[in-house]
This record gives sequence, structure tokens and C-alpha cells, in this order.
Amino acid sequence: MVNIQIKEKLISIVGAENYDDSKAGRLVYSYDATPNFQSMPDAVISPRNAQEISSILKVCSSSGVPIVPRGSGTNLCAGTCPTEGGIVLLFKHMNKIMEIDEENLTVTVQPGVITLDMINQVEARGLFYPPDPSSMKISTIGGNINENSGGLRGLKYGVTRDYVMGLEAVLANGDIIRTGGKLAKDVAGYDFTRLLVGSEGTLGIITEATLKLIPLPESKKTMLALYQDLEQAAKSVSKIIADKIIPATLEFLDQPTLKVVEDFAQIGLPTDVQAVLLIEQDGPIEVVEKDMKKMAEICKKQGAVSVQLANSEMEAEALRTARRAALSALARLKPTTILEDATVPRSEIANMVKAINEISQKYGLSICTFGHAGDGNLHPTCPADARDKDEMERVEKAFEEIFIKAIELGGTITGEHGVGVMKAPYLELKLGQAGIDAMKAVKAALDPNNILNPGKIFAKDNRKRVVVSQ
Amino acid sequence: MVNIQIKEKLISIVGAENYDDSKAGRLVYSYDATPNFQSMPDAVISPRNAQEISSILKVCSSSGVPIVPRGSGTNLCAGTCPTEGGIVLLFKHMNKIMEIDEENLTVTVQPGVITLDMINQVEARGLFYPPDPSSMKISTIGGNINENSGGLRGLKYGVTRDYVMGLEAVLANGDIIRTGGKLAKDVAGYDFTRLLVGSEGTLGIITEATLKLIPLPESKKTMLALYQDLEQAAKSVSKIIADKIIPATLEFLDQPTLKVVEDFAQIGLPTDVQAVLLIEQDGPIEVVEKDMKKMAEICKKQGAVSVQLANSEMEAEALRTARRAALSALARLKPTTILEDATVPRSEIANMVKAINEISQKYGLSICTFGHAGDGNLHPTCPADARDKDEMERVEKAFEEIFIKAIELGGTITGEHGVGVMKAPYLELKLGQAGIDAMKAVKAALDPNNILNPGKIFAKDNRKRVVVSQ
Repeated sequence: MVNIQIKEKLISIVGAENYDDSKAGRLVYSYDATPNFQSMPDAVISPRNAQEISSILKVCSSSGVPIVPRGSGTNLCAGTCPTEGGIVLLFKHMNKIMEIDEENLTVTVQPGVITLDMINQVEARGLFYPPDPSSMKISTIGGNINENSGGLRGLKYGVTRDYVMGLEAVLANGDIIRTGGKLAKDVAGYDFTRLLVGSEGTLGIITEATLKLIPLPESKKTMLALYQDLEQAAKSVSKIIADKIIPATLEFLDQPTLKVVEDFAQIGLPTDVQAVLLIEQDGPIEVVEKDMKKMAEICKKQGAVSVQLANSEMEAEALRTARRAALSALARLKPTTILEDATVPRSEIANMVKAINEISQKYGLSICTFGHAGDGNLHPTCPADARDKDEMERVEKAFEEIFIKAIELGGTITGEHGVGVMKAPYLELKLGQAGIDAMKAVKAALDPNNILNPGKIFAKDNRKRVVVSQ
Repeated sequence: MVNIQIKEKLISIVGAENYDDSKAGRLVYSYDATPNFQSMPDAVISPRNAQEISSILKVCSSSGVPIVPRGSGTNLCAGTCPTEGGIVLLFKHMNKIMEIDEENLTVTVQPGVITLDMINQVEARGLFYPPDPSSMKISTIGGNINENSGGLRGLKYGVTRDYVMGLEAVLANGDIIRTGGKLAKDVAGYDFTRLLVGSEGTLGIITEATLKLIPLPESKKTMLALYQDLEQAAKSVSKIIADKIIPATLEFLDQPTLKVVEDFAQIGLPTDVQAVLLIEQDGPIEVVEKDMKKMAEICKKQGAVSVQLANSEMEAEALRTARRAALSALARLKPTTILEDATVPRSEIANMVKAINEISQKYGLSICTFGHAGDGNLHPTCPADARDKDEMERVEKAFEEIFIKAIELGGTITGEHGVGVMKAPYLELKLGQAGIDAMKAVKAALDPNNILNPGKIFAKDNRKRVVVSQ
């Protein structure tokens, strides 16, 4: 609880104009993009630099007040919901692109930079930052780093983790540390850069990041492969990779998703087929053309009823935008949209899609499935209504079965959304008790007073997924 | 100290045939490839599986006996020298390639597999494991993972860390954990995979690894660019990258190194120039040819006196082999070879090479410099004689200045060799006290009795680099 003494200390650090404990101000930051989680913070604070964050953390550490760093709150694991109260920390003053270094191919940013703004700026210099979470229009780089965000280009280019070269971060005790640098190789001590990436704000507060860039591919082509059989689509994915082609994007949408997306985007997507693969390749033009031709052949051989190349970059961009809008489109169906990211080895996609359909039938639910087929990262999505207790119980049971199935197939409970509060009860499925104990030991070592985003990643109790706490 | 009770317990776990405390047996494992470090272990143990390692660690934890996991001992940081006694753990029974999965593009191995054996096996299937430390003919994958080994292809393809997808490891308390999997995306909890990679055996003992493979590039070309001016060579490196070409290899050798390597390898390397760049590109043939042509033009424009394309794969292989033999060649000059791996942002290579030459002159030493110019990872190497105390003192001072200069240029004290005992006194230069404290907290949390490779990474005292302890 933030008492008057703590409040005064915090205001003396950031100024009254950057401290807000009005009811309206707190309400705005009482939830994030995750359905059904809400909890009021005691205050919202907007520091201007790492030094101020260091001072804030010292106050929080000595008083035991929770602190929840938050970018744009687009995460889907309730990772930025202040479930234990305390202070929500915003980066609105720390949103600058500090440097684009064309000789070392790096960009150095503050955490509050909007992902797409940065991508546009580096692309204007002929450089490329590949991680592209669907929320990139509004997400921040700091949020992406904390969640280790993925996206559509993960298969070929990797995820956020693969592009973070160095960080400045403030630890719970107020120490400011720097990890890595503009260095392709650095083995000086443990890999704290990657320990912080994806740690969901529970180990430190990131205040600056140096990211790796690569040359912008010189060309790109996009195509759609249509299937009347889900399994044929899934097998095409495996076959493409086994034929040693790594496309830039290999997205899967099932029929229910297609219908909803077309209804939303109105770009002429086929809705009379069972599944679609959205396939892109980028690189030197000769290579792109060769790969697209080979992939079209593979898809046809695996039973695609049609393979259509986008006629123009405008048409391709429309397809990509439609795909990125899948969550927004699905969210229009019912008041509560539960979107998950169970992930399996790509050879198991056909089995996973089949299992999702069976589970959805078993519980009388309508689950739409789409996602990053190329990296086995599926998004089974259930439009539901949180006010319908019976339905929500069935949703909960269905997703538990989906997670168990993913683990059984060698997969994981979360490919790119993070654990947060949402997946915490299932973490043991993936890590076992020994794995969780080891991670908790690291958390306790770096944050002994448990002030950094407490209640996230590690579950307090088991198996209560959809908590309504308003 | 291993007393008779502990010895009996250990023998009951692995069998008498896998426990050796003879003087000869211990002597063999009292040192590694690092000059001037030697210390006798109490015993050498060769477990057959993770379960046995778990039992061994429980014995060590309860009795406080140090345990030093060791592959082929090719590291250059005294990382596998049993400086505090205890037990050296070998992987000679855990050296199998468990699976090559062509659908998911992974290989699963035990830690004792020889790197090159695995590379040859995956290449026979048209797949590619890029990390290629110069020691790969004899190094083990387990050693590579523990040191996060780099190599000649780091610039384009990254280092060992970038290819480790999942691990099985035994923690100090005997718990067996599994991290990651055959998954391009997995954010279930902290990134323990990468925390273990490069942790030099101080956080856990790796017992199995799943590694990422990529399609084998369809062609490769090699060329040599010759310079009469070091700075022109360094500038060519920056210019190539700034022109958005990422070559597979971009190696630098200065004249002293060239002379020694040619004397050793006898393949007709030029010895009348000041520096050479060994440049390789791989990929689709059209792209390789275009890139090689552009790079040749850039090198000439920057002042290369000659640019020569290798006429055949045999000639190219001879060049690569000669480069990989640089350490062996230099080691013939004098009894003690101090090879370091100070690393800087690639834009600073010219400055770093210049500084190394000035420092070498200041201390009256002959330092040869070669290394992975493309990723700023240089290997200043000083042939010396450990019996000459005065010379060794000058070597120590010179390398301290080299490390300080590297940090000043935004670099690091070690790019790919690891900290071990050798670099421990300098770690603070890179991380600061706060960074070291945080890493020590993680170490203490996961290994409270400090049994896992104690005395490594974190220095006991400051600034004593070349310790002769025989």
C-alpha cells in the first residue's frame, strides 16, 4: 500500500505532474489487453530516466510496494495487470530512438518507442528489424523485450530475443546495470541480456536497449494456398521445411477464422475452403522466385485446391494486414475473446489442429485456429462471454486440455504471449517442479522483496485460469 | 577433499572402472589448453547418464567437493582446470548423436559428441550447424555450449547460443531439468536455456542438447584481399557491412601471423603484405557471385593491392584450414602462447588494431593479431616464455591495457573464449560491481554450496592474470 510518506518520496523523485493516484488515472491502468483481469493500482508513475527509476525502486524495495512496468499493455497474459496493487510504471517520457548505427547495424532505443515507428525508421535506411508482433502498431519495444514477442516472421528470422544485443536495466535494489553491447560476440559472464528478455518485468526494469538490425531484403513475394483439408495444409508446412526452404512467413488460418477475417477486412479472402496458408518469401529476387515456385509445387502436390500469387505489393500488404487483424476480427464475435498460443514442434501441427477441433467439439465450443504454422505456434481462439459461468468453465477445461496436448506433443504452453497470471497455473506442465523451483530461486536472488511485477509467472494456486476479479 | 567415504559413494554410483584417482590419471586432467594453469584434481569420474550425474552432484553438494565438468579441455580461459581440486567429470560415455530430425531441423546430442563429427553427420543430410570454433576437430558440443563458442561464421550465422533450442541439465542439488525443446518459440518462464549456455559449468551440468539446424547453403566462394596498410583492411570490413553485405566469413590476419601460418601450412600465403582479409560468402550461387564481386570492388576501392578468388574448393579449404591453424602455428614460436579475444564493435577494429600495435611496442613484445574481423572479435596473440618472469609481467600489463582499450571502444574482455580463471580479474571492467553482484546472486541461488566449477568467472582477488601454479 502506498501511504502518504511513500507518495511524497515518489513525487519528490518524478515531480507531481508525473505521479497520478486519481481514481480515473488508476482505472485506465487497472487492466491490459487480457480479457477478464482487472485490479486497481495505487498510483501511476512516469519517470524520465533510469536514475529516477533507480530511486523509485529503492523506495519500493524498502517499503515492499509492488511495481509493474507497462508499455502499451497489449500483452495477452495479464502481464501488466497490477494484480497485487502497487504502482504502474509508464515509459511515456522514455520513448526516443537514441541512435541508428549503420556501420554496426544496430539501433539503440528507449523502452517506450512504438515498435512500428522504429521499424519504419530503420527501413527508411535500408535496414530491417524482423520481429513483428501483430500488435506492433501500438506495442512498445520495451513491452516486446519483456515478453520476448514473436510474430509472423519468427520461422526465418527468430523472435525479439534474437535481436537484443545489449540492455540497460535497473534491478530491484536500484542498481543500474548494462549487459552486452554492439557486439556479435560477448561471453563476459552469464547471459543477463537474455535472462532479462522475456522475464516479464519480474527481474528488472529495462531502460534502454541496443537491437541488432540486418540488411532489408531486396524483394518479397506473397501467395495463398487453399485447402479443403486441414491436414493437407499442415503437411505442406512440414514438407516445405523438409525440402530445405525457410519462408519468411508461413501462416495458417482455418475456415472459421477466414470467415471472420473476411467479414472484417473485406478483401476477397476465400471463405469456402477449410484452410489457407499465407506464404511469403523475401530476399534476392532470383531466390524468392525460385522458392515461391518450389513452394507452390509442394502445396499443390500436398492437395492444395488452388495456389494464388499476390499480383501486387498492395494486394500482398492487404493479405498481411488481414492476417494481423485476426484477433480484432474475432473479438467482434462475442464479448470475451480467449486467444491462446499453445506451440508444438512444426511436425506436430496436423496433430495439434486435429486435437483442438476434437477438444472444441467435446466442450461444445467454437474454437477458431490460426497462427504461425511455420514455427508450430498456433492461436486457438475462443469467442465467449465472461458472464456465462458455465461456458467459461468449459473454456477453461478445453484450454487446459489443449495445453496438456501441446506438452504431450513436445510443445509448450506459450510460444510468444508470456506466462503472466494467465498461464501461471500451467507452467508446471512444461517445466516440472524442479524447473519452477530453479526459476523461483533466481527471482528471489534478484528481487528478494518481491516488488517487481509480483504474482506473475509463478502461480500462487493451481488451475484457475479465467479469474474474474473486478 | 575426497575422503574414503565419499570415494566409496562415488564408486557405488559409477562403478570402480569409471572412477580414477591414480596419480597418472589425475595428472592428465590437471590442466587444459590454457597456458600456465595447472592444479591436481582429487579424482576423475566418468558417469554414464544424467541419473548418475544427479547422484554425483548430491554427494558433492552434501560434502562440499568441487566438480569440474570437462569436454576436450580446448578452452583458453582455464575454465576446466580444477583450480580448487575436487572431481573432474568426463563425458566419454555420453557421446552419442541421439537423433537428426529432418522435419523439425534439429539434432539432439549428448555433451561428449565431437563438434566436427556432428557437423559432418548433419551435412551428409544436407543440413548445416554453423558454429565452427577453430578447435572443432577435437572440441565437444558440451564444451562449446558451456563456453558459448564462436568461430569463423559468427558474423552471418551467430554463435553456439543461437543454435541451442533445448537442454537437459543437472542442477547442484541433483535436480534434472529440461529447458526449451524443438520449438522456434517458447516463452514459458525465464530463458534458462541461454542462462546455461556460456555459464562455464558453474550453474549446472548439461547432459543433453537439442540444436537448431538450417539448410546447407548450396554454394560457397572464398577470396583473399591483400593490403599494405592495416587500416585499409579494417575499413574494408566496415564498408562491406555498411554496404549491406553480410559475408559468411571475414577474417583478418596481420603480417606477423601470416608469416607464421605460411611457415606452418606452406600453402603459398603472401607474406610480403601488411594484412590479409579472408572473405567467404555462401548461399544460392547467383547471390554468392554478386556478393563476391561487390566485396572485391569494395576492397580494391579501400586500397587492397590485390584481390584473389580461390580457384577451387580445395584451394579454399586450404585457406580456411591455414586460418584455423593460426594458434597451432603461433604456438611453435615460443614455449608459452597467450592468445586473447578482446572484442569491439566492428566499426572500431581499425582503432583496436592500432592500439594493440602501440601497446605491444610500449612493452617490447611481439603481438600477432588475427581474428574474426567481421564481428570485431580479434585474437591478439603473444608468443612468450613463462619462465621469463620479467617478460610475463610485461605480457600481463600489455593485455590489461588491451582489455581496458577494448572496453573504452565499447567492446568486451572476451568475445568467445569465456572468463574462466584467466579473465576473472577483468570482468569488473565490463560489468561493473553491480553487474558482478547480480551474477553472483544468481550463482549463489542455484549453487549455494559453490560446488559447480568453483573459482571460475568471479575473481577472488584482482588483477593477477598469468598465475603459475604448478
